[in-house]
Amino acid sequence: MTDISITRLSASEAGFDDALNRLLAWDDSVDHQVNESVRHILGEVKLRGDAAVMEFTAKFDQLEVASMAELEMSQARLEQALERIPADQRDALEAAADRIRDYHQRQRQDSWQYEDADGTVLGQKVTPLDRVGIYVPGGKAAYPSSVLMNALPAKVAGVAEIIMVVPTPAGVVNDMVLAAAAIAGVDRVFTLGGAQAVGALAYGTETVPAVDKIVGPGNIFVATAKREVFGTVGIDMIAGPSEILVICDGQTDPDWIAMDLFSQAEHDEQAQSILLSPDAAFLDAVEASIRKLVVTMERGEIIARSLTDRGALIQVKDLDEAAEVSNRIAPEHLELSVADPQALAEKIRHAGAIFLGRYTAEALGDYCAGPNHVLPTSGTARFSSPLGVYDFQKRSSLIGFSAAGADRMGRVASVLARGEGLTAHARSAEYRLDQDQ
Amino acid sequence: MTDISITRLSASEAGFDDALNRLLAWDDSVDHQVNESVRHILGEVKLRGDAAVMEFTAKFDQLEVASMAELEMSQARLEQALERIPADQRDALEAAADRIRDYHQRQRQDSWQYEDADGTVLGQKVTPLDRVGIYVPGGKAAYPSSVLMNALPAKVAGVAEIIMVVPTPAGVVNDMVLAAAAIAGVDRVFTLGGAQAVGALAYGTETVPAVDKIVGPGNIFVATAKREVFGTVGIDMIAGPSEILVICDGQTDPDWIAMDLFSQAEHDEQAQSILLSPDAAFLDAVEASIRKLVVTMERGEIIARSLTDRGALIQVKDLDEAAEVSNRIAPEHLELSVADPQALAEKIRHAGAIFLGRYTAEALGDYCAGPNHVLPTSGTARFSSPLGVYDFQKRSSLIGFSAAGADRMGRVASVLARGEGLTAHARSAEYRLDQDQ
Repeated sequence: MTDISITRLSASEAGFDDALNRLLAWDDSVDHQVNESVRHILGEVKLRGDAAVMEFTAKFDQLEVASMAELEMSQARLEQALERIPADQRDALEAAADRIRDYHQRQRQDSWQYEDADGTVLGQKVTPLDRVGIYVPGGKAAYPSSVLMNALPAKVAGVAEIIMVVPTPAGVVNDMVLAAAAIAGVDRVFTLGGAQAVGALAYGTETVPAVDKIVGPGNIFVATAKREVFGTVGIDMIAGPSEILVICDGQTDPDWIAMDLFSQAEHDEQAQSILLSPDAAFLDAVEASIRKLVVTMERGEIIARSLTDRGALIQVKDLDEAAEVSNRIAPEHLELSVADPQALAEKIRHAGAIFLGRYTAEALGDYCAGPNHVLPTSGTARFSSPLGVYDFQKRSSLIGFSAAGADRMGRVASVLARGEGLTAHARSAEYRLDQDQ
Repeated sequence: MTDISITRLSASEAGFDDALNRLLAWDDSVDHQVNESVRHILGEVKLRGDAAVMEFTAKFDQLEVASMAELEMSQARLEQALERIPADQRDALEAAADRIRDYHQRQRQDSWQYEDADGTVLGQKVTPLDRVGIYVPGGKAAYPSSVLMNALPAKVAGVAEIIMVVPTPAGVVNDMVLAAAAIAGVDRVFTLGGAQAVGALAYGTETVPAVDKIVGPGNIFVATAKREVFGTVGIDMIAGPSEILVICDGQTDPDWIAMDLFSQAEHDEQAQSILLSPDAAFLDAVEASIRKLVVTMERGEIIARSLTDRGALIQVKDLDEAAEVSNRIAPEHLELSVADPQALAEKIRHAGAIFLGRYTAEALGDYCAGPNHVLPTSGTARFSSPLGVYDFQKRSSLIGFSAAGADRMGRVASVLARGEGLTAHARSAEYRLDQDQ
């Protein structure tokens, strides 16, 4: 079934704000049963380590093993996968990895330090995380590109050890995923998935080393487990469904725009594709392209469902209004398919990634443009950023007072500490005052 | 009662690892009843807005008002507080604010963009958050320094509107807190607290505008509410009890070190103060200083409880071993009270803030050194950073392909997309290929 009924809105019509809110509404409330199940799994893994991990893997992934060693994949196996995949795939993965590495190197932050007039040193020491875990989904949605996008920023940051987990339900292995791990320089790979994999990474087991941060996409069990272990380890954002917002001046081939909308919609039924244009005839043309092209798509049913349930074609007064609506949505992917995309980008305050101009298909960003494809969804671009090298570095403040500085600022600290009723703070500062003053 | 029994350990003794783990163990498991109560409050605030906020404020803060307007404090009231506090307090707050502003300005990140050989533009656009909420505890633990530490980085980042909430149980207002808000340039202040304040900031009400991120410390209800609204808005880290780790070579006045340990211990009974030294006689001397000084402290009972329950004096082989133990602990505050603190700091991988040398009392960092006093606790310095300007800025990736670039990289994207079974992605890229090639 590829019948499509796509919502049409106009930003100037009465009730547009409410209609937009309904369109964007996304229920991310936690399922109580999933929660209970995840807590049970995490508790068992924390308590019983490897034994629990093996039991849950047998139960959920139909993968029975005699020892945990069977759930680890050797570097030789990764290299074998790299040799085995078609040459064009290997070349494409390597080309993508080069661009991703090159872009992310520009995100590295360095330590800095300065000295003020009285010899006091202040600064910030930047260090990589020691060990990071990357969750990679297995089965039907196995994405080698995600391996590159999650592992390479950690590598560029200088993380010493990268542990990847990927479920292999019933033993099914994806060679392209393993090849990507080899290219990205992943240190160890365990064929684990679900909440049990997250638990193993967060708490450590006899075999799986505990990591400092867990990143990567996963199903509701994985997402819930990550939320649960947040605090014990760091996590990246919990991702919602993927979204694209296209702003077009009406001068791009409508087939191109239709296909760009499809490229989000094909992810899953909850994905969201929205087009804004000041040109009503263009919206009609894109709708016609959608109807024409959807029947030619392998994932046409998913696309039709997604566009019908969550898609929209929205007429705006002009590109300024389009920027306003876009800032309200704070989309994950924003395509500016207009004559002067840089000028329009100036007006954009919130977006995960901005794709500039008619030639910049969002799909290029998913694979090989260079920037990360892990982006804030569901409006969280209002306060969060793409996954980056900065997610694998952390900072320590550096403070070194000279005797003169300790005297000058100790007097300030003493007044404030006493104002807050914290006498030990005050006296600790007062000991360092120049007693002759 | 200021009786103290402080744990003594040696890093070389058998069972040290287990003893250290027991010492550091901190149960941050969520209380089920608190959880239920917080969910109820958040649900009501989301549904009924101002009305619910007023009801909960009457119930929990014994503050009855006829309208929400009574729960907002005018800028005039903040200015009045600034005029009213003693001159030395005002001077101290302003001196602290200047240094905090100066340090944080160096954390600002700027947008960048570059063009590669075929004219493709890549970059990162850095923008401030639109609106931020700051939670400031009221009542007995009212800390004006926290207002500066939370508001100033947001201000430096360029956040357009800062909303502060501070409970005033039974109408009790702290002028120093309001004065700090005036100095920091807070835009609006509501006298709200607890989960209801967090809910009002996260969802917005008729009167309180919804914010994009909520930062600032609070009790278990506030922490639980922040954890709950995470995703709808951004939050800072959930803080555990405060901690200090002091590494001393034995050459600092033991009274100074004892008082430094007290300055954490006086926060609350769960605070943790640990001293590492290779000099056993020095550990004895500090213990003697502790016993001598604790009876002179206003908050002596809290200090005695904290040091007895969670404090420790640990003998290490040498400073290298001290650095190793410190990296395992990943302390919030780390004092290097040694002859060559910069050399020792090189060996430190994980710490919220590092205090260099004998003159650098940790208390200086709490108030006026410049760096932030909101720091990662409970070992989370392994993967997180002090609160900073970067917490109030976010990034958008910029990608602009030239026709030549879209052709070259589109071929790569097409191979990878087809390898992942995502045909719409592939076709969207293929439309932009140079069809003559």
